[in-house]
Amino acid sequence: MSATVHTLGIKPEPSLAPLMQLVADDMNGVNAVILDRMQSKVALIPELAGHLIAGGGKRMRPMLTLASAKLLSYPGTRHHRLAAAVEFIHTATLLHDDVVDGSGMRRGKRTANLIWGNPASVLVGDFLFTRAFELMVEDGSLKVLKILSSASSIIAEGEVEQLTAQRQIDTDEDQYLGIIEAKTAALFAAACRVAPVVAEAGEEVELLLESYGRNLGVAFQLTDDVIDYASDEATMGKGVGDDFREGKMTLPLILAYARGSEEDRTFWRAAVSGERAGDDDLAHAIALMRSTDALADTVETARHYGRRAVDSLASFPPGRAKSAMVEAVEFAIRRAY
Amino acid sequence: MSATVHTLGIKPEPSLAPLMQLVADDMNGVNAVILDRMQSKVALIPELAGHLIAGGGKRMRPMLTLASAKLLSYPGTRHHRLAAAVEFIHTATLLHDDVVDGSGMRRGKRTANLIWGNPASVLVGDFLFTRAFELMVEDGSLKVLKILSSASSIIAEGEVEQLTAQRQIDTDEDQYLGIIEAKTAALFAAACRVAPVVAEAGEEVELLLESYGRNLGVAFQLTDDVIDYASDEATMGKGVGDDFREGKMTLPLILAYARGSEEDRTFWRAAVSGERAGDDDLAHAIALMRSTDALADTVETARHYGRRAVDSLASFPPGRAKSAMVEAVEFAIRRAY
Repeated sequence: MSATVHTLGIKPEPSLAPLMQLVADDMNGVNAVILDRMQSKVALIPELAGHLIAGGGKRMRPMLTLASAKLLSYPGTRHHRLAAAVEFIHTATLLHDDVVDGSGMRRGKRTANLIWGNPASVLVGDFLFTRAFELMVEDGSLKVLKILSSASSIIAEGEVEQLTAQRQIDTDEDQYLGIIEAKTAALFAAACRVAPVVAEAGEEVELLLESYGRNLGVAFQLTDDVIDYASDEATMGKGVGDDFREGKMTLPLILAYARGSEEDRTFWRAAVSGERAGDDDLAHAIALMRSTDALADTVETARHYGRRAVDSLASFPPGRAKSAMVEAVEFAIRRAY
Repeated sequence: MSATVHTLGIKPEPSLAPLMQLVADDMNGVNAVILDRMQSKVALIPELAGHLIAGGGKRMRPMLTLASAKLLSYPGTRHHRLAAAVEFIHTATLLHDDVVDGSGMRRGKRTANLIWGNPASVLVGDFLFTRAFELMVEDGSLKVLKILSSASSIIAEGEVEQLTAQRQIDTDEDQYLGIIEAKTAALFAAACRVAPVVAEAGEEVELLLESYGRNLGVAFQLTDDVIDYASDEATMGKGVGDDFREGKMTLPLILAYARGSEEDRTFWRAAVSGERAGDDDLAHAIALMRSTDALADTVETARHYGRRAVDSLASFPPGRAKSAMVEAVEFAIRRAY
């Protein structure tokens, strides 16, 4: 599906490079807004925010806003400010997530809450969230405000639901998909949808790009959830087994539990309750996930949502933007290998 | 200054009753919005939010929106939704404050973070904050959105600044006043200002009511800071000495330190750093605050801001709304006695 053809005729690994190249100039504009608006006379704010914002994130969500605008040949720059707002919302969520999970590592670095403490992470997260809204208000589109405030509310609701599902072995696939559509996919969807709004491309195009973003977001989260059981800390910058130790009910675990023997289920109940959370237990968990095809089928599910994301782009004319957006979907899923 | 005259000719204690009576009907409308919009399919959200929202708060900020609208004889109901948004912002702030401070008591009840844990308080706070923005977006006034998003950002910045000033003995009165203008007065000011916006009363009236709210907010916070050293838990529903134990640099402490002997200053440094935080230390702190007039002069400062709040109302015609708003200022300050 990628437009990039390797000179030797061998299809290369899908990568984010085409997307990054596509939006590089615009991203400079977004970064300028981000840097400008994370400033404050209170020194701790840019210090803490900068640790995370400057700290090696992919800027996936703002890239999607920028790429969607490219797909529509939008000539303006209004979306720079909105892409920055999206990244601020995301960063605020990460800061609060790390407090909620008690995480110590993110993107290969120590988390802000570990360095500056939970209170600072909570309050700087709040600050970034309010700055996101200020950016949207400055843009002045009530339609954009509606999309992003609604997405923010859905994210927060999804985060609370995830918290209540934690260590609950009876969480099922439907509930899980509902949670990740809320906590992850809603912002991907909104990030894509704001582009056709500023480009005045019409409701139909809005819905197609929202669908692209939502499905990509689900695929992205499913892949993340596989990675948590299938990768190693050095390459991913995230602690492997974090979800396991926190008793998070992600799809690999839900499938392995559903398909397990009575003995396996006893293990899973103990693991999810936190009674079996050692390294040996994690290794056993991964072995069970492999023997029940739980990891492979989670990747298959990611692939299903990825296909839907790509299909949402079907009616757009071929070109550099579309190719890059298709390859981003492939990249999102291939990370699990 | 109160319009209420006691039948025996003795001026009664100032009270919030006239304000509450003035806005009682409107408050039913606000409460309906609050109850409706704190609902969620995720049961923990209304459960936790309801604990705080239904739990005996005075609804001071929404009352100010409603009273300001009465002062302007605004005939509509748009401000009900906005007053609810203001209360949601305030509630979100309280939830996060209690996490930041590790508080155990609020309004005479156990805090949400103590009952449901910090993660739930952080995330439900986020949810209420996003709901506040949804309410504002539904109202559809960019001017209101600008006022309340700016106030929210100022609040968050003030909270971070307060955190960085914590246990910093060199915090001075200017910095302290800057912090409370941000963390407390900004929302009082915004709550009042949205009324003339929806009533289309013009910029001049907006500025007067904003000034009323801001000055009342400063007076209110100063009085709260006195109460933390001068009241008892049973009557105020808040742990006395909380600020002391947390090393918070409030005006009573700043004045007592500035006016203290070298020996006193040694004590204050130890107290603020957390080395002397026992009940005896608190008693000694209060004694020093009394002997240096630090508490009395903080009340005087509150009175100064209260006078400015009242003066901001000078050009409005006399009547029930104005009397109630003046008495609310007196009430805010008299709580310290």
